[in-house]
Amino acid sequence: MRIALDAMGGDFAPEAIVKGALLATEQLDSNFEILLIGKEDVIKSLLLEYGYTGSGIKVINATQVIEMGEHPTKALTQKPDSSIAVGYGMLKAQKADAFCSAGNTGAMLVGAMFSVKAIEGIMRPSIAGLVPKLKGGFGLILDVGANADCKPDVLEQFGEIGYVYAKHVLEIDNPKVGLMNLGEEEGKGTVNTQAAYQRLKANQKINFIGNIEGRDLFNDKADVIVCDGYTGNIILKMAESIYDILNEKSMHDPFFDRFNYEAEGGSPILGINGNAIIGHGVSSPVAICNMVLQAQKMVASDFPEHLKNHFAEE
Amino acid sequence: MRIALDAMGGDFAPEAIVKGALLATEQLDSNFEILLIGKEDVIKSLLLEYGYTGSGIKVINATQVIEMGEHPTKALTQKPDSSIAVGYGMLKAQKADAFCSAGNTGAMLVGAMFSVKAIEGIMRPSIAGLVPKLKGGFGLILDVGANADCKPDVLEQFGEIGYVYAKHVLEIDNPKVGLMNLGEEEGKGTVNTQAAYQRLKANQKINFIGNIEGRDLFNDKADVIVCDGYTGNIILKMAESIYDILNEKSMHDPFFDRFNYEAEGGSPILGINGNAIIGHGVSSPVAICNMVLQAQKMVASDFPEHLKNHFAEE
Repeated sequence: MRIALDAMGGDFAPEAIVKGALLATEQLDSNFEILLIGKEDVIKSLLLEYGYTGSGIKVINATQVIEMGEHPTKALTQKPDSSIAVGYGMLKAQKADAFCSAGNTGAMLVGAMFSVKAIEGIMRPSIAGLVPKLKGGFGLILDVGANADCKPDVLEQFGEIGYVYAKHVLEIDNPKVGLMNLGEEEGKGTVNTQAAYQRLKANQKINFIGNIEGRDLFNDKADVIVCDGYTGNIILKMAESIYDILNEKSMHDPFFDRFNYEAEGGSPILGINGNAIIGHGVSSPVAICNMVLQAQKMVASDFPEHLKNHFAEE
Repeated sequence: MRIALDAMGGDFAPEAIVKGALLATEQLDSNFEILLIGKEDVIKSLLLEYGYTGSGIKVINATQVIEMGEHPTKALTQKPDSSIAVGYGMLKAQKADAFCSAGNTGAMLVGAMFSVKAIEGIMRPSIAGLVPKLKGGFGLILDVGANADCKPDVLEQFGEIGYVYAKHVLEIDNPKVGLMNLGEEEGKGTVNTQAAYQRLKANQKINFIGNIEGRDLFNDKADVIVCDGYTGNIILKMAESIYDILNEKSMHDPFFDRFNYEAEGGSPILGINGNAIIGHGVSSPVAICNMVLQAQKMVASDFPEHLKNHFAEE
C-alpha cells in the first residue's frame, strides 16, 4: 500500500509533515510506503536532519507549491508540478493508493474532480467530518464544506455515500442515517430539508431514521448525519472551538479529547474514484500521522469500489 | 411593571411555574407585579400550599390550556380562553408589559402575530438566543427557529433587530454584527448568505463586521450573530447538549455553566409590538424566575419602542 503525502501543504509544512510521516512509519508494517511529495532537496535534508534511515518513505519531487490563499482552479492550471497536482496525478495513475494533504482545501477538492473525478452517478462529492460519539467510536457528518448549497437529491446522495462509508470504513452494521434538522417531526425544516426527508425516507438502500437535532450530534441516534456544507462546516468548527476552550481551561476528558482534529487527522473526500483526505491547515506531526493511518483504513476497506457498486446498482 | 406569566405552559407546569414566580418575587421590588395566568383554583391552591402571602402575584383566570403538541393556529382559534391567548390579550390591551411562557413555542409565535403583531417594516419577527461570551456577558444569535428559510433581506433585518437589542437591552456600545458563514472571506457561503453579506455591508445603520465562523460563537468577534432559524436552532441545541454532557461528567466551569438554558430562562421574540419571551419546555423554577428577570430588563429598556424608531427612520 502506497500513501502519497503532500509534504508542502499546511501552515507548518514541510517540517510538521515530514515529522508526521516518520511517526506513521513507526506504526505501519513493511508493506507500506509513504510517498512524500514536494521539493526533493528540502525533504531529503529534513529526513537526514531527523535521522531517518528506513526504507518506508520515498521522496517524489514536485517543484511547485500551491499556497493556502490561492484560487484553486487557477493554481492547479498554472502549477502542474505542484505537490497537489503531482499527488493527484499519482493517484490517477494508480501509483498511489491514497493522497493526503493539509494544504489548500479548494485545490484538494478541485484536483480530485480534475484527476480521478467523481464516481459515475454521484452529483457532488463531499467532504465528510468524523464526529466522536459518546458511546465510543466515530460517526460521520457530511457535507462539511465542499457544497454550501445542496438540493434535496444531493442531500439524499450524501445519505447514501455516508451509509457506505460508515458500513465499510467505520465498520458499523446497517448504519443509521439521520437528517440534521430543527425538529424531529417529519414536516419540520427548510424547504430543502423537508424535500430531502421524503427522498431519504423513500430510499430503500439505506437505513434512514428521520430527523435529528443539534443536540443529537454526539449521541447514538444516527451514525451518519446528513446536512449541507454550510451547516456541517459551522457544526464542525463549533465543535473544534469547544475543544479549544476546554483545552485552554485545562478541562480534560477522554470524550472531549476526541474533539481534537488531531485524533483523526483529516476529512476524507467522498464520492471520487480514489482515496483522498484533507488535513487541517494547522496540522501537527501527530495529526499528519493519524491522517496517514486514516488513509490506510480507507484503502484497506476498498471504499471507492463499494461506493461504485452502490451507485451502479441504481 | 406587570409581567404576565403563563402558569400552564411547560412540562412541569403549573408547579414549576408557580415556584418560579415565587423565586422572582424575592428579587423584584414592590413596583412589580407578576400576573400568573391559568386555572385560577389550581394556581391559588399551589400558592397556598407554598405558603405565599405577599401581594406581588396576581392570578388571572384562563380556563383552557394549549398542549405542547397542538397545532399553533388551530389551538389559538379553538381555545380563546387558553393561558397563551389570554396572556397575549393582556399584552395587547397594555394590561401587561411583558408576557412569558414555557409552553407551545409555535402558539407563542403565532399568538404574537395575531395579537400585538409585527412592528411596521419588519418582515419576519424572530426568536433570538442568548449566547454566553468567553469575556463575560452574552451575545445574541438570531433567528433560532422561528424562520427556517430566510431570504437575504430578512437576514439583513435580523442584523438590525439584533443590533437594536444588543444596544438597548444588553447595553453594548455599537454592537458588532456578524454573519454566520463557512468562511471569513466575502465571497464565501450559500447563495443566500452571499447576498445577505452585501446587504448587511451596505447597511449604514448597523456595525457589520463581516462573516464569522462556527468557531467564533463564543469569542469577541461579534455581539450579534445573524443566521437563518434552521442554522441557529442547530447551534443552540448543540450548545445545550455540550452543557448536558459536561454536567453529566461533573465538569463544571463558570463559562460553560452559562450554557445552561436556566441562566437566562428563555428566548425573546423580537420584532413585535411588545415584550414576549419563550421558555424551554423543561423549564425549572430557576429558569422561570430568570425568564421573568429577563422580561423585566426588556421592559425597562423599552426595546420595542427603540425598534419601532429604528425601522420608522427608513
